[in-house]
Order: sequence, then structure tokens, then C-alpha cells
Amino acid sequence: MSTTDPSTDLLAAWRDIWLLSTTSAVLGWDEETGMPAGGTAHRGDQAALLAGLIHERVASPHLGELAQAALSSSDPIVQAHGRHALRAHERARHLPRALVEEVKRVAASAQRAWVDARTARDWHIYEPWLARIVALKRDEARALADSGQEPWEALVDEFEPGARVKDIVPMLDELAAALGPLVQAATSAPKRPDPSVLRRAFPVERQRLLGQMIAVGLGYDLERGRIDLTTHPFCTTLGRGDVRIAVRFHERDLGDGLFATIHEVGHALYEQGVPDALLGTPSGELSSLGLHESQSRLWENLVGRSAPFWRHWLPVLQRLFPDVVADVDLDTFVGAVNAVVPGPIRVGADEVTYNLHIVIRVAMERGLINGGLEVRDLREAWRASYRQHLGITPKDDVEGVLQDGHWSVGFFGYFPTYTLGNLYAAQLWQAARAALPDLDDALAAGRADGLLGWLRTNVHAKAATVPAAQVVAEASGAPLSAAPFIAHLRERLTQHGML
Amino acid sequence: MSTTDPSTDLLAAWRDIWLLSTTSAVLGWDEETGMPAGGTAHRGDQAALLAGLIHERVASPHLGELAQAALSSSDPIVQAHGRHALRAHERARHLPRALVEEVKRVAASAQRAWVDARTARDWHIYEPWLARIVALKRDEARALADSGQEPWEALVDEFEPGARVKDIVPMLDELAAALGPLVQAATSAPKRPDPSVLRRAFPVERQRLLGQMIAVGLGYDLERGRIDLTTHPFCTTLGRGDVRIAVRFHERDLGDGLFATIHEVGHALYEQGVPDALLGTPSGELSSLGLHESQSRLWENLVGRSAPFWRHWLPVLQRLFPDVVADVDLDTFVGAVNAVVPGPIRVGADEVTYNLHIVIRVAMERGLINGGLEVRDLREAWRASYRQHLGITPKDDVEGVLQDGHWSVGFFGYFPTYTLGNLYAAQLWQAARAALPDLDDALAAGRADGLLGWLRTNVHAKAATVPAAQVVAEASGAPLSAAPFIAHLRERLTQHGML
Repeated sequence: MSTTDPSTDLLAAWRDIWLLSTTSAVLGWDEETGMPAGGTAHRGDQAALLAGLIHERVASPHLGELAQAALSSSDPIVQAHGRHALRAHERARHLPRALVEEVKRVAASAQRAWVDARTARDWHIYEPWLARIVALKRDEARALADSGQEPWEALVDEFEPGARVKDIVPMLDELAAALGPLVQAATSAPKRPDPSVLRRAFPVERQRLLGQMIAVGLGYDLERGRIDLTTHPFCTTLGRGDVRIAVRFHERDLGDGLFATIHEVGHALYEQGVPDALLGTPSGELSSLGLHESQSRLWENLVGRSAPFWRHWLPVLQRLFPDVVADVDLDTFVGAVNAVVPGPIRVGADEVTYNLHIVIRVAMERGLINGGLEVRDLREAWRASYRQHLGITPKDDVEGVLQDGHWSVGFFGYFPTYTLGNLYAAQLWQAARAALPDLDDALAAGRADGLLGWLRTNVHAKAATVPAAQVVAEASGAPLSAAPFIAHLRERLTQHGML
Repeated sequence: MSTTDPSTDLLAAWRDIWLLSTTSAVLGWDEETGMPAGGTAHRGDQAALLAGLIHERVASPHLGELAQAALSSSDPIVQAHGRHALRAHERARHLPRALVEEVKRVAASAQRAWVDARTARDWHIYEPWLARIVALKRDEARALADSGQEPWEALVDEFEPGARVKDIVPMLDELAAALGPLVQAATSAPKRPDPSVLRRAFPVERQRLLGQMIAVGLGYDLERGRIDLTTHPFCTTLGRGDVRIAVRFHERDLGDGLFATIHEVGHALYEQGVPDALLGTPSGELSSLGLHESQSRLWENLVGRSAPFWRHWLPVLQRLFPDVVADVDLDTFVGAVNAVVPGPIRVGADEVTYNLHIVIRVAMERGLINGGLEVRDLREAWRASYRQHLGITPKDDVEGVLQDGHWSVGFFGYFPTYTLGNLYAAQLWQAARAALPDLDDALAAGRADGLLGWLRTNVHAKAATVPAAQVVAEASGAPLSAAPFIAHLRERLTQHGML
């Protein structure tokens, strides 16, 4: 079926791609929240077939032609559709379908091996699967990289279009240099906050309820979503009107489940905020993962660790856990959630040390993809890096190389987007505060609608019609800089007696 | 890709069809166990696209040729593959892809409307959706029916290959004639059992635990399955090593959730019993839904309502609900689960009245598909039929036309397979008892492995390599007859003082 308008044909072709990719998201959601272990291999075959069907469509010359035609439209939205479709097409046509399918097939088993290895606390269950994934991703990176381009950079480009090693690596180095003294100061300050209140016993069922209450309070729409349990927290869009979150809770670690929930809610608010008219089009997804991450980090850290936020939510927490936290005052609690404690786990890290985890992971994944680091040497490299950058040694592999599943599913080149997200978030937050003078009062009254509205207008509504850097520049009036992030950290540390 | 062996090519082509159809099963599972309401329309679009992709493959001339070639193999298994593939191919090529997709698309919304209508107890939410489904299924039936064939029969054939109206309708009439006097006797016997014990308050969380214990006790493998909650109980295969059950529980109706669980476990034991080598081939599914239903009904009724079964499980029930059923003895309990009480709900019906529900439903769906009954007149027809056959009037539509969702998803021609299942089950049970002289002792000791082994060998292992009627004839040494079923009912009624 073909119309005279190539942009209509592009949207029709993309609609099927979107239906298939959201179907793949349903497979992934089920795999991580409910699938019995016995279903692993078959799930990999299902995901591989879908990946192949998607690849076939994206790589088809016809789609390339439709995307090219859209580029010359006078409508900037249609141009954006063309830009995204052409980028996906160019990536796809450099990859053999068999490789695309094999990555998906192996990822399902590697993901399961990762979960099993965590349960058994046994790296050797996971090692051979990770080695297979690394070998496949090396092939993929080589197939995608331009001549002279570092292979890892070609993988980063999938998640953060246009990002360059020559920008990312110096940025991380500079950040590491700035963070070192802050960590030093924060961990040696005489009156530094005590995080131990978060380690009391919080029954997980009520943690789950608290998470749901906060999610709804921040604007997450449960008629178009749901919150389930999983091993590693994530947010995923299964289709129009269906954006879900999966998290985990530990009785003796209130912060882990709580901030993971707010983090994933941040992602979900973005996904639920994409305008209906853009959903399912080439511009209907994210501009970049960094920008997506800015939304999760903004809610998790800039809102979720702020005093005004807890002015509203601490009394709720105390009603849910009266015997546990009746004695805790606001200053103590907000101090606890801002304590700087170098630790082995990235997702549980405070705002100051967090990006040092990214520095470590980026160096390791560059080595794995470009060569220079082999999977068999990964544990030793891990321990050495953590000693060097954070002065700690993980007590076992669950605190080390098994701590997250990104690599198991082939997400190499993904980690730098976390740091970009932190920088984008701080810059957006600065702009939002300037635009919303009563923001602190609203948060203290339990209202997040003003902030959400600002983000809807300045970020979510644009989806991928505008590049991420431009979204942030337009919203904040300045190009991306680490300055707002560093300023934010210094302000927080000062507030809580760590600087 | 093509080999010199057409049966290898047929299996390769069928593998993709199976991967797509099990992916569709994942969509369906998620839809009925977790999807938020907002996802409904998109889910319909996803399911429609998959249905279209499957249809394209099944209807392709190449698949028809491969199936034809397999028919002339000297290997009876390959012949069976050819037979099933050709049958599917012939059905598919009579149906336009657009119709296949539209049925799937509308079914997702109709299913949601059915759930919403039940919640709101408002037929009018569901009526327009059912009318759309009926119109589409009339189109489908007309496209499939041979000249002179009753359209409804062409729909039955999907579920029960080769079944004919000229056999089904007289069988149901004869059964109705035989059941009438039994219902009459059972409901007027002076010492008939009292089912009220099942209406005590059984906290649903522990009912759920009981269901899991029984499922595992009967041989259901939780490493290759899981049990969730839903509106209408079902069993589905999401892939190799992944056969799931969804059920529901009501505090004041122990029998509903309990027997639904055993019923779905019966289906799941069949699915988990298909040999690995047949899974994903054209003969790797069921011979017929009637045979499939025989497995659910055998476990639900012939095992699950027997005294030996409860000799083991009543003490477990009493430990789970000590305050509720400590006073109940074995005779009283087994009597309660065998009480004959004409009621409005098919799935909760006793063994004697159950098939009268099927008589009613078959007459109504024939009218809906062949013409003669319109959706707008369905409620009145429903009430009239229930008065005529069971002497009762549903108190509302949830007890009436909203009681199950088969029609909402387009399952017309499905209901007769329930009665066939009852007849097959009784005949298989008679044969199993003859082959396993210590069966009652084993069940009383909580062991079902002997019976499961017999079913694995005589039914499950054959999957669809042999037609259903032949499976039962080989296992029992006689062609299908209603006599074992009637004999079984008479024995049960006599045991419990109702005859």
C-alpha cells in the first residue's frame, strides 16, 4: 500500500516497526518479571525472530528511500522523522540480520545466567555467557564503526546519537578530578550525616506501598502503567498507554527500593509525556538516553533527596512505619539520604560518588569492546579500579561484576549516558527553579504538578523532534556544562555539613 | 534457505510460525494477567500484526507445497505434520488477512469491554463489542464453510477437526435427555449432600497456596510454569518450558478457585507432557480441544471430586483453614463437592448439570453465527434457555451472558468441545482404572504419578500425531461413547445418596 505522500508511507512503515518493537518489549517485561526459568531458551528464540523482523524492515531499501524523502520536507517534524529513520536504517544495513538475531538469542540466556549467578553468588555461571555477548558486540561494533573510529564509539552512538569519545572521556576525567576533593571533604567532615536510619528494618510490603504512593504523587498514571518486582529496576514502554516500572525492595535498605522507584518513575513520566501524535513515529521515542536519564535523575536526586520533598513525605513514611522512624526528624532523614559513602554498588551510590562508578565502567567497557580487556580478567580489573577510584573492594561478585545486567543484554556504550543524564538534570533543574519560584513550597505541600508541567512543555513534548543537546539548551538558555551539577553538589554538601 | 528434504523445510517454516504464535500467547497472557487498561487498543494492534504475520506464513503457497510433500512421506509422523500443516493452510487461504487481523484487533477491545462490563455489571458496555465480533465471525464462517455447510460447523472445525453438526447436535440432545432424570433424582433425593461447607469464609491467599500445593502434587512443574490471577481461568503455552495457568479465588466459594485450578492444571499437564521432539512442529499441539479438555476434566472431576483424592488433601485443607473446616469429615466434604445444584454459572457447575450449560450455549452460538439470533436479543434468549433447561433465572448478567469471555475473543464453535472432553475423560478414566488397580490407594496417599504416567504414555506423548478419536480408542479399546460418562455419573450419585 502506498500513498502519494512519502511521509505518510514512512509513518505507516514505522508503525509496524513500532508494533514489533513494543511486542519485543512485552517479551522483555515478561522475561524479567514473571517468566519461569524453563522458558529462557525459547524466549531468546522469540526475541531473536522479532529482532530479525524489525531489522528486515529497518534495513529495507524502501525505508531508506522514504526516510531520505522525508529529509527534504519543509515540515521540521517530518524532517526529524526522516533523520531518525535514516539513522536507524544506516545502522541496520551495516549489521547482518544473523548477528542481530544472535545477540538477542544469546542475551536471553546470558540474562538468565546473570540472575542465576547472583543467586548462587558464582561468577563462573555468568562468565561464559558474558564472553559470548562481548564477542558478538565486538563484531557489531566493528561492523558499525567508520574506518579509524574506535569501535566502542559506534556502540555509544546507538544510545547517545552523535556522542564522541573525544568529548566523553575528557568530560569524565574532568568530572573525576572535580569529584575527588568533594568525596574527600564529604567523608572526612566532622559533622557529616549518618545514613544508618535507612538500614533499619522496613517491611518490604509497605515499602512497596510507599513506592506506589510516591509514584502516583509525582504524576505516574497507573491506568496506563503498573509497578512490579524484578531483579534490576527498569522502566519500559509496552505500547501506547502502557508504560511500566519494575523495582525491588530490601528490608534493610530503604534507600535502594525507594530511590530506584523514584528513578524509574522519572523515566516513566517522560514516556507517559510523549504526545500522542508522536508516539509510534520515528521521533516518538527519546532524543538520547542521556536526556532520558536526566528525567530519572532529576526526580530521584534533585527532587527526591531535597528537604522540601521530604517535608511532605517524611510524615507519610512515619505513618507507614510508625515503630521504625517515629524518632527521626526532617534534618536527620534528609541528611541520611544525602550522606556520601563510597560503596561498591552504582545504583545505590550517592550523588557525589555516582559518576566515579561511571568512570570505572566506561574504562572497562571500552577495554572489553576495543580490546585490551578480556572477560576472564574482568574481576581483577574491577577490583583494581574500585580500589583506585573509590578506595574500596567489593566483598563479593554480587557487589562487583554481577551488580547489574546491562552487559548481559548487550548494552555496551550505555554507561556514559548516566553521567550525561546527571549533567542534563542539574542544568534543567536550575532552569526549572528559576521558572517556578514557588517550587519548594509546592513540593513541601506534596504537589509536583508544576514541575511536571514545566518538564512536559520543555522536554517531554519534544520527544525526539529536537536533538537532546538542543532540548537542554532551549530549556536552560545555555549549552551543556558540568557547572550546574558541580554547583548543585556543593550546595547539597554545604547544606548537610559536608563542605 | 531450503534443504533437499521437504519435511526439514516444513519444520523450519513451522518453527517461525510457532515462535510467532507463542509470542502472541505472551501478549495474551500479559493482557489477561497484568496489562493496564490504557494498553488495550495498542495490544489489539500488536496482536493483529502478529496474526497477520502468522497468516501470511500459513497461507503461503510454499507452505502448502511443503505440507503436500510431507503427506506422501513413509514416516507416519511426517505425514501427520503434513496433515496438520495442510489443514491450517487450507483454512488460512480461505481467509483474507485483513479479516484475520481485524478479529484480533477487535477482540482485544471486546475482551476489555467484557471485563469492564462485569465490573460495572452493565451488559451495555459489552453489547456493541460482542456485536462487532459476531459480525466478523459470521464473515469468517461464511468464508470457511463449504457450499451447503452450516457456517457454525466451519468454526467448530478449527477446535475439533472433522467434527460435524450431524454428530454433535444429536449427541447433545441424547445427553440432555439422559441428564434430565438424573438432575431430577439428584435434586429431590431426601439425603442429598449439602454443599454449604464450600461457602464458608476461606481467605483467598491461603486458597492460592492450596492451589499451588495441589498443582505441584499432581505433577505440575513450576520451573516450567507459573500460576497467576485473572478474571476467567485459563492455561496457555508461552513457549518450550513455559506453560502457565491463571485462576481466580473468591473467599466465599472454595469450589470455584479450587476446581478451576485443578482443571487448568489438567490442561497444563498435557502441555507439559508433549514430547520435546514434537514441540513446535505441526503435530506438537493438541489433536483437538475436546481431547485437551478431557485432560482438564479428568483431573478436575474424576480425580478431584473423588473420595481417595480427598483422603489425602482434606487434612491439608484442614491445616490451612483450621478454624473453618476442622469439623468437616471426609464423607461430608466429598459429598459437598459432588452436590448437584442447578446454577447459572457453567464453570462452577456440578458434573451432572454441566453439559446442560453446553446444550444452551451451543444452541445460542449456532443462532448467532448461522443467523436467527442477534446480539440485541441474546439476554432474553439466555434467560429463556436457562429457565427451560435448568429451571433457573440468572439474577444478573454477570451470572448470565457476561459469565465467560470466550465469545469476546471470537471463540465460537468452542463450547461443544467441553462436552466432548467430558465424554473422552470418562472413557479414559475407565481405561486408566482398569490399567492401574492401585490407583485409588495411590491417590489416597497423595501420589498422582502413576495416573500421570499412564496419561503421558497413552495421551500426551502422542500430541497430534494421531487424531483425538483414535487416541481415545487406542487407550480404551473402544470408540467414543457416552456410556462411560453416564455410568460414572450414576456411580457418583449412588455413592452420595442422590440415586
